Amino acid sequence: MRDVVVIGTGQTPVGELWEKSLRHLAHDAIIPAMSDAGLERADALYVGNMLSGELAGQEHLGALIADFIGLRGIEAMKVEAACASGAAALRVGLMAVASGLHDVVLVCGVEKMTDTVGGVTTSALATAADQEYEVSQGVSFVGLNALLMRRYMYQYGVTHEAFAGFTVNAHRNGVNNPNAMFRSAISVGSYMKAGMIADPINLMDSSPVCDGAACVVLAAADRFKSKAKASILASSVATDSLAIHDRRDPLVLDAVALSSQKAYVAARVRPADIHVFELHDAFSIMAALSLEAAGFAPQGKGVQLALNGDIAIGGKLPISTMGGLKSRGHPVGATGVYQVVELVSQLTGQAGANQVRGATVGMAQNIGGSGATVITHILGAV
Amino acid sequence: MRDVVVIGTGQTPVGELWEKSLRHLAHDAIIPAMSDAGLERADALYVGNMLSGELAGQEHLGALIADFIGLRGIEAMKVEAACASGAAALRVGLMAVASGLHDVVLVCGVEKMTDTVGGVTTSALATAADQEYEVSQGVSFVGLNALLMRRYMYQYGVTHEAFAGFTVNAHRNGVNNPNAMFRSAISVGSYMKAGMIADPINLMDSSPVCDGAACVVLAAADRFKSKAKASILASSVATDSLAIHDRRDPLVLDAVALSSQKAYVAARVRPADIHVFELHDAFSIMAALSLEAAGFAPQGKGVQLALNGDIAIGGKLPISTMGGLKSRGHPVGATGVYQVVELVSQLTGQAGANQVRGATVGMAQNIGGSGATVITHILGAV
Repeated sequence: MRDVVVIGTGQTPVGELWEKSLRHLAHDAIIPAMSDAGLERADALYVGNMLSGELAGQEHLGALIADFIGLRGIEAMKVEAACASGAAALRVGLMAVASGLHDVVLVCGVEKMTDTVGGVTTSALATAADQEYEVSQGVSFVGLNALLMRRYMYQYGVTHEAFAGFTVNAHRNGVNNPNAMFRSAISVGSYMKAGMIADPINLMDSSPVCDGAACVVLAAADRFKSKAKASILASSVATDSLAIHDRRDPLVLDAVALSSQKAYVAARVRPADIHVFELHDAFSIMAALSLEAAGFAPQGKGVQLALNGDIAIGGKLPISTMGGLKSRGHPVGATGVYQVVELVSQLTGQAGANQVRGATVGMAQNIGGSGATVITHILGAV
Repeated sequence: MRDVVVIGTGQTPVGELWEKSLRHLAHDAIIPAMSDAGLERADALYVGNMLSGELAGQEHLGALIADFIGLRGIEAMKVEAACASGAAALRVGLMAVASGLHDVVLVCGVEKMTDTVGGVTTSALATAADQEYEVSQGVSFVGLNALLMRRYMYQYGVTHEAFAGFTVNAHRNGVNNPNAMFRSAISVGSYMKAGMIADPINLMDSSPVCDGAACVVLAAADRFKSKAKASILASSVATDSLAIHDRRDPLVLDAVALSSQKAYVAARVRPADIHVFELHDAFSIMAALSLEAAGFAPQGKGVQLALNGDIAIGGKLPISTMGGLKSRGHPVGATGVYQVVELVSQLTGQAGANQVRGATVGMAQNIGGSGATVITHILGAV
């Protein structure tokens, strides 16, 4: 198996980008990434996307985008694992290079969730949950996460306010990210006053509906050593049941634990060795549960890391350093690639005001559904 | 790069399977395949599917199916490339094993197209074409293929009846396939009398809307030598523009030519060395264009192979030996896996009355859209 490195990254700003269609968004992330890598061609394109069929009436994004970026003819396909689609595409790109089938490939996560009419996006997001056992009962995806948050508050005796730290941290970091959707810091007071979406999840507990695309160029380490920006030390995927009622314990994300452990073993690190953790804070409850299952806090104590400042830049375990899903935004199928783009900026010392000093090992974790697909990548500085 | 072999296959009958949901269909193909391989576990599952989001309100099939077959926890994801989704998933499974990341993986193609209301399936299939430049004009996917067939008839002076041989051959072969949707032979007369769908494509030029699932178990050749049923000699993907008006020549499937050539080189064979060709006869015009671009006939002469009997079992180049997309059926995201399952039955001498004598090298070609994604696999007997 060949070692794989990242040799280029690109991203669009995240937001309501009504003037750009899916292919334009992808183009605007891929071309800068190829330019960053100093390349005009690549062997293949793997697209991470969840909702193009439901929301844009367009499947077949692989060939569509390969053609639009001027690379008609190359291998291309779409990879889907709900909100973990971006990292799933990265995983496939890594296998393509590691196997020796290709030397340099493009991985692009792209999603367009706005510019729709009615409740279409909410329905489309619910396709990440179990249609036959959950969604058919009328519950939305936010609703499922709300049930988890309510249960967490009850079981561990935690108040709603205890989650504020995740949102405050994300927005504080988003201020300095020119690609973030929301670039204003918020206070605990405004967190508490935010409108309720699905009790107890309010507007400030929830990542936004938005559009965006991000791209990484992966290459064989032995052939592109001089261009390497970061090494992929580990890549792992684990799954759980989609339906939350079928889990061993609804408050323990078994797939996060399994995926993280496999990644730690492959990268030969312990949780304490991770300098930056780009986690999947689609909802503040997901941030808490992820920190616990990934081994950074005991069960029920994930919120403590937000309360005591550990998750801040300069803290013990900086998370969401460029704003995370809450402030940078969560264009679902693109998020896993954004996370890795941001990790590379940290590992190359390019994170500006949000730079984590001395960061040489970082972890990105992309979650599909309420923890049913968990994909972890650990990257190292070169 | 490690060599990869097929060690097990499974399939459901193709048809209107209203009593089975997506996960049940996948289960009914995967469990027999694992049993065929003599295994109770696998390292990962790659699902080929195109329309689950649009038609069943269910994305995230990887984790959903992994859980339902009793393998909760393993790596799983969905791969999509329109009607070539099945072969795309196979390609990813091959990369997973070739890279050394996994030793044995499941590849399952599954699609459920019936059990819907109104014209939903027709709209969903059109997501394989270019939404912004083709579908928005009101053309359906059959309509696009009808334009190609009309152009072919005009440019080469070919009658509608000249295409009958493809359908007659497919139905003749389907008679002996217990998993085929249509098991009755048809005559040229009934072909000519079939109702028109999109002139000149009639009901007998077109593959049916249907449900089905197929599975292959892939494994590392060095570790599973004794279980090997067939070797994968080549795997290649090529793309073209989705929009037909953007092609170099609408009647030349450039991606078929490129994908086939790459596969021939990798497998070190010439077209004349192929003993069986499972091609993508979603429409009879696609069969003709595929034979030409893959190097089996000059431009405009593909129909001759049907007229002179070359494509029959016992002919020079048997195609659609178990009924093809027309008679076995075309559950779109599953088709690419069905093709390989059928190829393995030929290469292992298990094809019964439809056995191609002495078949040791076979090719399967799965096409997404009207030729925008073309994935070719060449398999060899062991």
